[in-house]
Amino acid sequence: MIVEVIAVGTELLLGQIVNSNASKIGAVLADHGLDSHYQQVVGDNLDRVSLVIETAVARADAVIITGGIGPTQDDLTREALCQATGREMEFSESYAAHLEDWWERRGRVMPRSNLQQAEHPSGAELLVNPKGTAPGLALDHDNTLIFCVPGVPSEMEHLLHNEVMPRIVERSGGPAVVVSRVLKTWGQSESGMGEMLDDLYRSSANPSLAFLASAGEIKLRITAKADTREHALQLIEPMEREIEGRVRQWLFAHDNKTVQDIIFGALEKHGWTIATAESMTGGMVSAALTSVSGASRYVRGGLVAYDSELKATLLGVTDVSSVVDEETAIQMAVGARELLGADVAVSVTGSAGPEPLEKPAGTVVVGVATPEGARARELSMPGDRERVRAYGTTTALQLARLAVTGKWWSS
Amino acid sequence: MIVEVIAVGTELLLGQIVNSNASKIGAVLADHGLDSHYQQVVGDNLDRVSLVIETAVARADAVIITGGIGPTQDDLTREALCQATGREMEFSESYAAHLEDWWERRGRVMPRSNLQQAEHPSGAELLVNPKGTAPGLALDHDNTLIFCVPGVPSEMEHLLHNEVMPRIVERSGGPAVVVSRVLKTWGQSESGMGEMLDDLYRSSANPSLAFLASAGEIKLRITAKADTREHALQLIEPMEREIEGRVRQWLFAHDNKTVQDIIFGALEKHGWTIATAESMTGGMVSAALTSVSGASRYVRGGLVAYDSELKATLLGVTDVSSVVDEETAIQMAVGARELLGADVAVSVTGSAGPEPLEKPAGTVVVGVATPEGARARELSMPGDRERVRAYGTTTALQLARLAVTGKWWSS
Repeated sequence: MIVEVIAVGTELLLGQIVNSNASKIGAVLADHGLDSHYQQVVGDNLDRVSLVIETAVARADAVIITGGIGPTQDDLTREALCQATGREMEFSESYAAHLEDWWERRGRVMPRSNLQQAEHPSGAELLVNPKGTAPGLALDHDNTLIFCVPGVPSEMEHLLHNEVMPRIVERSGGPAVVVSRVLKTWGQSESGMGEMLDDLYRSSANPSLAFLASAGEIKLRITAKADTREHALQLIEPMEREIEGRVRQWLFAHDNKTVQDIIFGALEKHGWTIATAESMTGGMVSAALTSVSGASRYVRGGLVAYDSELKATLLGVTDVSSVVDEETAIQMAVGARELLGADVAVSVTGSAGPEPLEKPAGTVVVGVATPEGARARELSMPGDRERVRAYGTTTALQLARLAVTGKWWSS
Repeated sequence: MIVEVIAVGTELLLGQIVNSNASKIGAVLADHGLDSHYQQVVGDNLDRVSLVIETAVARADAVIITGGIGPTQDDLTREALCQATGREMEFSESYAAHLEDWWERRGRVMPRSNLQQAEHPSGAELLVNPKGTAPGLALDHDNTLIFCVPGVPSEMEHLLHNEVMPRIVERSGGPAVVVSRVLKTWGQSESGMGEMLDDLYRSSANPSLAFLASAGEIKLRITAKADTREHALQLIEPMEREIEGRVRQWLFAHDNKTVQDIIFGALEKHGWTIATAESMTGGMVSAALTSVSGASRYVRGGLVAYDSELKATLLGVTDVSSVVDEETAIQMAVGARELLGADVAVSVTGSAGPEPLEKPAGTVVVGVATPEGARARELSMPGDRERVRAYGTTTALQLARLAVTGKWWSS
């Protein structure tokens, strides 16, 4: 069953608000195993709203329209729905009475314009909206289910879950579930990963495979649709095994687990604490470690030695005439363990740009020291200052993960 | 001139990410006085991407397509553009050489799939993307300008401002210079600011007034359209004067100036350096200070004393049995000046949540020490851990700004 989402409102086109409704509805549809091929956004213009409804009705089994059903002059969705479906507008005396009662109970006189909300295309059912005065609409037109819900997110969500989805699921004739498993990798480029999994990607339908990249981490998402969660997981399993086999050397976590979770898990096992020594990333590695609730159990603290002199005086770096190299990174990490009283320390030095510092902009050197030893690695990162710092932060966390999980790295 | 925005990506339909690109582009189009009637979202499916492009080309004067131009198999926008416009795919040897060079300079072997990014429909111009490897595309097809830009927001925005908008504005033959002036404020709520400027907001057309809030800073953007930059500025001036008069006590910068710029400007004047001492924000204040190119002239470094013990041993805090109070914040700042050899230090302690630490989650205490004295301030922030840390970071920077510009604060 294919469902299309339409959002009505000039404020969306003008970028005054983000279309979070479409995204929320999309996630709910996916959870129910329903397909969605298109979303449309249209301003408060009768002919254009009518056109997008016609387009959606012609290609989808159900259409969910958000916005444009309030009491003001620019609320045109009801009228556009009449125009798109060739239906007459009718008036619900009973809903009008309900509205009048609603206002009366609040001791206020109802503005007349509110009666517009009792109007509906002939054949439509009014969906009571307990969170506002604008009712939703449900209309079965030429075997396509059409729903109108308010644009206010809380009202939209209430009607979506309580009125819209039950009707769509019933029409779709079955409880389908969609389950995703995510494999998180680091150390391989998005394109390299794409080549390695090309055959699986091309042959994938159910389960399907997707790639999502952020600051150096690449997530591989396997998604399956089935009648039950167990069956969906059974569909996922062979592909997951196959992918795990191919990407094992870069795989570091599943689903919602983060690199911080893995680091903290390893620290817990050893009874270790961690600290940071940063220059180029200026505190970002420390900020990332402490972004996780419960970090205080493992994180002692960090030193940002932005000025080279502090690398010498506080961290014991012996030669600060050059600081973008592996020797400096190792000394920074070793020094941070001592200064901050931690078992493990991760350090970052480098040249963030835009001006080169000793080495070309984009040079990042990460060091890690643990009770088992110390090692450093120099890398070259693409992009501008912001991106180099972000990738440098990911690299520091990932190399710290390798070290505390006993995997280290070769160079 | 009518411009339509298309976002390509199954992850948008599935609600895994919100379509913020369409909203950002919509705002930029509105600023330029360009009309937009529809937005479309489509998944990674060749025929469907082609269909939405055809639809948009038929009804708009310019089409901006985001997403689907990376190096992996699900990047189909280039191919769909060929299909929709009936053009052949061509290969840019020079861009391929550029890509190979890009990888080579980073000492890595380019995966072959990256060469897909050198492909383009015949007649299209490749737009160099300095923030990534996927180039944008510009194609003039049957008098409609078609642009492809990456889905990664920072890459999209760079190409939008530097490549796409200049071409659209030129085609629109536009008078149309659009000029904005931004007044940046801190210390007043968005709703309070809204009430204070309500009359100006309601009566504004050209120039228009917009409010943009981020982590406690509120930007007031005045935008005017005119035939020349000078005329636009003349339209802006009276409103800018009026607003400056009303918000003077919270105003801290104009246009692209940041709080870091103001802080560094004051430090330059005094010949001072700065350092940080953080616990709750875990390095975010230091990371924010060093995010600016040229920070190394002013920033000595920072200590993240996440474990209370480090507050005592390294910063000289006398009583670490309670650390969420103004006395601790002052001692942290004073201690950081000494430890890190800086003239000015800003400190943050507090309770980020979700669990309360001594005081309710959301309690933030900022201290600042300069050669002229030291002071601290305790505040209460709304929201979850991430938001409290972000607002805490802004507060620390803003109180540091007040201190180094000789304005301090009363409590």
